[in-house]
Amino acid sequence: MAVYTDVGVEDLAAFLEPYDVGGLVSFRGIAEGVENTNYVLEAERGRFILTLYEKRVNEHDLPFFLGLMEHLNARGINCPLPVRARDGRMLHRLAGRPAALITFLKGVSYRRPTPVHCAELGRTLAELHVAADGFRKARPNALGLDGWRPLYLLARNGAESVQHGLRGLIDRELDHLEEVWPRDLPAGVIHADLFPNNVFFMGEKLTGVIDFYFACNDAFAYDLAICINAWCFEADFAFNLTKSRALIAAYQAVRPLSPAERAAFPTLCRGSALRFLLTRLYDYLNVPAGALVKPHDPKDYSKRLRFHQSVTGPADYGFAA
Amino acid sequence: MAVYTDVGVEDLAAFLEPYDVGGLVSFRGIAEGVENTNYVLEAERGRFILTLYEKRVNEHDLPFFLGLMEHLNARGINCPLPVRARDGRMLHRLAGRPAALITFLKGVSYRRPTPVHCAELGRTLAELHVAADGFRKARPNALGLDGWRPLYLLARNGAESVQHGLRGLIDRELDHLEEVWPRDLPAGVIHADLFPNNVFFMGEKLTGVIDFYFACNDAFAYDLAICINAWCFEADFAFNLTKSRALIAAYQAVRPLSPAERAAFPTLCRGSALRFLLTRLYDYLNVPAGALVKPHDPKDYSKRLRFHQSVTGPADYGFAA
Repeated sequence: MAVYTDVGVEDLAAFLEPYDVGGLVSFRGIAEGVENTNYVLEAERGRFILTLYEKRVNEHDLPFFLGLMEHLNARGINCPLPVRARDGRMLHRLAGRPAALITFLKGVSYRRPTPVHCAELGRTLAELHVAADGFRKARPNALGLDGWRPLYLLARNGAESVQHGLRGLIDRELDHLEEVWPRDLPAGVIHADLFPNNVFFMGEKLTGVIDFYFACNDAFAYDLAICINAWCFEADFAFNLTKSRALIAAYQAVRPLSPAERAAFPTLCRGSALRFLLTRLYDYLNVPAGALVKPHDPKDYSKRLRFHQSVTGPADYGFAA
Repeated sequence: MAVYTDVGVEDLAAFLEPYDVGGLVSFRGIAEGVENTNYVLEAERGRFILTLYEKRVNEHDLPFFLGLMEHLNARGINCPLPVRARDGRMLHRLAGRPAALITFLKGVSYRRPTPVHCAELGRTLAELHVAADGFRKARPNALGLDGWRPLYLLARNGAESVQHGLRGLIDRELDHLEEVWPRDLPAGVIHADLFPNNVFFMGEKLTGVIDFYFACNDAFAYDLAICINAWCFEADFAFNLTKSRALIAAYQAVRPLSPAERAAFPTLCRGSALRFLLTRLYDYLNVPAGALVKPHDPKDYSKRLRFHQSVTGPADYGFAA
């Protein structure tokens, strides 16, 4: 939510020199992305997002993220395309940081997506999973099952201060998931962070998927479970079955889930809720004093987790029996 | 440097309804303006800045600011034009705040403007002063001579903690300026905050003047003195006579200064340096703990003030003898 690195026009001119985008027309820092610094940059030959990668992003992961966007874009996914300069490279340096120029996508994100938006998302998510096939780089999911317990140990002492009973809830859930977590589901590259603010629409049509900086290799159905958590609960944490059914049906129209994926789906939803509960809990307990960015409330995800614990089977998410 | 008010697309749609700008295409919060919340909003019929006025701006001043921009724009000044909705109004409400849609200006601001940029600025500043003639609203300068001592009294106790000798410097300067300040110079509407970040260029051509939220009625030559302070010192606080000469000559090509204005010019430069020294000192001493926005260093302006105190006459700024 902030510009972390302030770039002067004079430095920017040198950065742009190896790109064939024409002269600079306008340049505004945007309040988007907590991890990186982003500018909207208009040049004579188009509009772009200029991203400067800050310390929280591992520089060694950047070829995976940028290469993935290029791979998906070439296969028809509406995602940003990193621009290659005349030297063939997508990554250069600006203000001492790795920086990339990527195409600007039109559209707006909805806070309260409708079932039609959920269906658009489901179709696009499946298309993304299919299109990622053949991408040669891989990146393990640092926030997958094996990452949860180490992260939790950094936050466990503060859990009760956030919500009474939270420590017991997570203790038991983590034990349970480590025991039952499915390990051989169909897998490949997943987005892993497809929240409504990362998806653009014009009216009811999906026009863009952005922010691939959590993308990694993991089970496809786990990505779908992340979307169920992020898109199908109302502001009061009521589960919206109409949205879930629309999302899942549209996904399956492109890529039907196997019986094993369906059977595991309630577990994947629990795991996905726990993953965001843990990162939010950690961030909540470690927010700098006086920070302008208000951390997300971890309780949003303990409520989702409790819903998933109450589920009796895949049909509760709207899978056809 | 931050989005203060977070606006959802759903609320935005209702806000846009009375405007004839067509459907929403994209919408990004920009990190611009410390006082207000700004978005770049693209609609089918153009690109705009959506500004939400936060508490630090007095709502009663908004008709002055918006009316001034409309007046200047109609007279050929490259400044944003507030869009009138079908009800004829420029000001509506969004997220509980007064909000306006103004046209987007192309161009970029330079950190290190050249003498050519300074000349462009001088010409435009004079054109702005001439064009403002006939604007019917008025607004006193709350940060003019009469406002300095009350502001200083809120910061005087902390002055020595910022710089050794600063309290004595300001005490003496304020006494001096209250005695010699010229009170009957040609006056009208001035911009009063024309720093390089508020002026856009494409290459060497000035394409826009923005941020009229300090505009007020005061001496025209005082506005020129503000620009000398903001544009004609180098990063090491050396005074750049080439830039000053270019700025003043271009101004006078449009609106020549009277003998009284020239004679008062060194005093006006001292006053303008003191005005920014005082507001920066106050802000520096009152920055919230942990704030992400780093306050400007007041010493930047005590150094400028000391230069102006050393001046022997208007010729030192590059006025022809």
